[in-house]
Amino acid sequence: MEATKRIEQALADSLARGEIQGCPPKLAAAMQYAVFPGGARIRPRLCLAVGQACGADAPGVLFAAAAAIELLHCASLVHDDLPCFDDAATRRGQPSVHAKFGERIAVLTGDALIVMAFQTLARGAANKPERLASLLVTITESVGMPTGIVAGQAWECESRVVLAEYQRAKTGALFSAATVAGAEAAGQSAGPWHALGEYIGEAYQVADDIRDVVGTEESLGKPVGRDAVLGRPSAALELGLEGALNHFERLVGKAIASIPPCPGAAQLRSLMRSEVNRLLPREYATA
Amino acid sequence: MEATKRIEQALADSLARGEIQGCPPKLAAAMQYAVFPGGARIRPRLCLAVGQACGADAPGVLFAAAAAIELLHCASLVHDDLPCFDDAATRRGQPSVHAKFGERIAVLTGDALIVMAFQTLARGAANKPERLASLLVTITESVGMPTGIVAGQAWECESRVVLAEYQRAKTGALFSAATVAGAEAAGQSAGPWHALGEYIGEAYQVADDIRDVVGTEESLGKPVGRDAVLGRPSAALELGLEGALNHFERLVGKAIASIPPCPGAAQLRSLMRSEVNRLLPREYATA
Repeated sequence: MEATKRIEQALADSLARGEIQGCPPKLAAAMQYAVFPGGARIRPRLCLAVGQACGADAPGVLFAAAAAIELLHCASLVHDDLPCFDDAATRRGQPSVHAKFGERIAVLTGDALIVMAFQTLARGAANKPERLASLLVTITESVGMPTGIVAGQAWECESRVVLAEYQRAKTGALFSAATVAGAEAAGQSAGPWHALGEYIGEAYQVADDIRDVVGTEESLGKPVGRDAVLGRPSAALELGLEGALNHFERLVGKAIASIPPCPGAAQLRSLMRSEVNRLLPREYATA
Repeated sequence: MEATKRIEQALADSLARGEIQGCPPKLAAAMQYAVFPGGARIRPRLCLAVGQACGADAPGVLFAAAAAIELLHCASLVHDDLPCFDDAATRRGQPSVHAKFGERIAVLTGDALIVMAFQTLARGAANKPERLASLLVTITESVGMPTGIVAGQAWECESRVVLAEYQRAKTGALFSAATVAGAEAAGQSAGPWHALGEYIGEAYQVADDIRDVVGTEESLGKPVGRDAVLGRPSAALELGLEGALNHFERLVGKAIASIPPCPGAAQLRSLMRSEVNRLLPREYATA
């Protein structure tokens, strides 16, 4: 698919700009390793899909936003896997970054990918500075305090957690940023696009909880059953498998219904339906 | 001093915006702890001094840039202190962030402060989007790959290191960004301001190496003699104390001579002289 290829290219371009002029080789190798080969790239695909549905008039800005969002996602995975958090030895079927490069390089890889996300945005949107300003607000808010990924991860360090808030911060925020940034990169108003990202993000989290319960380490490329072991909040553990699947379907329906009027709305609705089917284990996907 | 107060206020404002709406309390507390009370705030002071010498016409942009640079510095200290790096139990005379809040919160505190730096920049420079674009490039490059702080820290994980390159990345890059960002925040050209930051940064690193050799844990608020213990590159260990002090003086002379013509050049030269005197232990400071 064309979108996938162009996302990979945008990510490769970002990383290549960090590797010139005698950079520290282990960190450079670990950053490549953390980003390639990727997972489903669902966040940047969502960002592109919305940008294109809005009639993307500045593809450079749109791809920079999509790449920035994926780099932030990759950074969060590297830090989540650290021994002090999930202590995950594998990720995407390979040794995790800290397992392969050591803990010090893993901490720095996360840091460097966060910074690279904003470098990518700065360069890609330099010729549309007004859009850069709004994109930077959108994307930083989805990652930082008080309600972004980092805040979500910090809820894992608290004894009292509200499941919905935790998941909204840890997962939903970056999905929401993906749809909003797609619209902003195309010069469109952000407001109507929040809901789509929030629902897709919530559905993704439910799917992730389901995969942690019914998946195998081989199919997921990472350890399963970790939510129960680590006592993490989980929709599949809280609602049961059938309840979680029903919840997933309701969220997908709401997501698709939330798509606001735009030139490519019909195509986007159909694309969203096929994208969400990639989230569940094959035997649970709806036709 | 007025500049100091306004820097503290800008930092407090940034942090306050991350603490609304039921944010995770431990992470919020750790972020406050990592930023207050601060050290010498030498980087934001340098940024402000240059911005004011350039006739700062947009103080909101200038203070946002200064605060962003200090937040990034604080983030780097938190991650440097982690058990996998320096394993420092104290910082600024207090338990380090990981010693007080645990390793997980310390990793997240660094991450969240990095993101907050760019949030602060985005908000503070929103009404000057062209300046935001150049500031974002300048500041991200000083922190990320291939030649920013994170790259500098990664050189500690390599077996072959060039001392000058290591120090330029780990320390010099953010000092250089401080002077350049000061000029850019005032709408001035960045080029002539690189050298000042580079020389001050190099002098700062030499002073830091000297303090690690001659200082006491009590006066510095952190363990001393760590460079020798950890086998880190150090000008004081390489050149001896007197050689390092001479090197420091030469760098300060070059820094002051590099200040380009600008409305406040004379005042800036005198300010720089008093600022660098704060870097050395009192008994070694020049009059």
